[in-house]
Amino acid sequence: MLITFEGIDGAGKSTQVKKLKKFLMEKGHEVLTLREPGGTIVAEKIRDLLLASKHDITPIGELLLFSASRAELVQNIIVPELQQNRIVILDRFYDSTTAYQGYGRGLDLETLRQINAISSFGLKPDVTFFLDISPEDALIRKFSEKSIPLAFEQSELDRMESSGLAFYQRVREGYMKLVETNERFILLDAGDEPQEIHNKIIQKLAPFCSNKQKKPMQSEKREKF
Amino acid sequence: MLITFEGIDGAGKSTQVKKLKKFLMEKGHEVLTLREPGGTIVAEKIRDLLLASKHDITPIGELLLFSASRAELVQNIIVPELQQNRIVILDRFYDSTTAYQGYGRGLDLETLRQINAISSFGLKPDVTFFLDISPEDALIRKFSEKSIPLAFEQSELDRMESSGLAFYQRVREGYMKLVETNERFILLDAGDEPQEIHNKIIQKLAPFCSNKQKKPMQSEKREKF
Repeated sequence: MLITFEGIDGAGKSTQVKKLKKFLMEKGHEVLTLREPGGTIVAEKIRDLLLASKHDITPIGELLLFSASRAELVQNIIVPELQQNRIVILDRFYDSTTAYQGYGRGLDLETLRQINAISSFGLKPDVTFFLDISPEDALIRKFSEKSIPLAFEQSELDRMESSGLAFYQRVREGYMKLVETNERFILLDAGDEPQEIHNKIIQKLAPFCSNKQKKPMQSEKREKF
Repeated sequence: MLITFEGIDGAGKSTQVKKLKKFLMEKGHEVLTLREPGGTIVAEKIRDLLLASKHDITPIGELLLFSASRAELVQNIIVPELQQNRIVILDRFYDSTTAYQGYGRGLDLETLRQINAISSFGLKPDVTFFLDISPEDALIRKFSEKSIPLAFEQSELDRMESSGLAFYQRVREGYMKLVETNERFILLDAGDEPQEIHNKIIQKLAPFCSNKQKKPMQSEKREKF
């Protein structure tokens, strides 16, 4: 099973990913959590390149680099793990590309659809949890964090300030359009208590997790783009 | 004007690029020659990444990285140069992707068409010279060269050996299909003497170069993909 988490920065995705991983492992599942971009030797190098040259790179160049990193991760890690019947939880997948670069930055949505289909090899999440939060609340949360663990998150914070709230509002609206048009999306209020959100998530996942043996092989389920 | 040279390794493209550049500059044109991948800070980093990890990278990952490098080059260098009415000569462009990764490696041609359109922003060469040579003759030429100036060319040589002649035969056939279906292609016999090939090239370019002032702006001519 492939589970993805989406939402603007500060929505609490990583907290929920950790809680869900713990829950599923306690139930006896094998679980792998991943965060884009990165996860393979080549993908990590692409990540370094994206971080080092963020301000010099063109939007399409950035899109293609993110997509190259995704293709490496999907083909080398995600697909083999799913074939071994493991649960893969992703903190962001191609919906982030659609929301951020499409709705946020204004790149052509049809172009993104094509690139996303290519970089993910048509792989589709079984469930996508969208943690909805207003950009204002997200910003307050980010700034109130005492330490920023990763360089990339620090950079995200910088971009958040510089991109402004209007950008994040467009991203949020983009996500809402995805929620409305894709059955696999589950909308969650990121303003709720983390434990309450977690309880809703495991409730939604119950039909998938009740009988491990009956899960279809992910490789047979490919999204029609 | 955008002029591209295509052909399998060893066809003599770089020799003809140099001769043409010299000729056009002597005629008073401003000329820029470029070679993919590379040409901008980010594109050079992508080039390093492609070289360092050639054997670990997936075909789609490689395609997306080449395309990211191309997008950087097109947007940052080629388009601005063309807008300044300079002549840009490229040693390889997206037709190489179609021939090598499509016909040679067997990647889906429709996928390549989409990626090529995205990475080139729809920019289309005015003229493409295809230097045709048999893989056997190309291999003999490559091996008879006394020194290999660039690491990448050495690597190309290694790949040529390991990919085998059958691969290069497919690439050649792919190029021939492009020649048959695209009016901008001009087929040249790479077995002719370099000076003879050069003379044919400048003869073909005469309609474009006879009156510098009447050249259409490249930005108005975008390929329909």
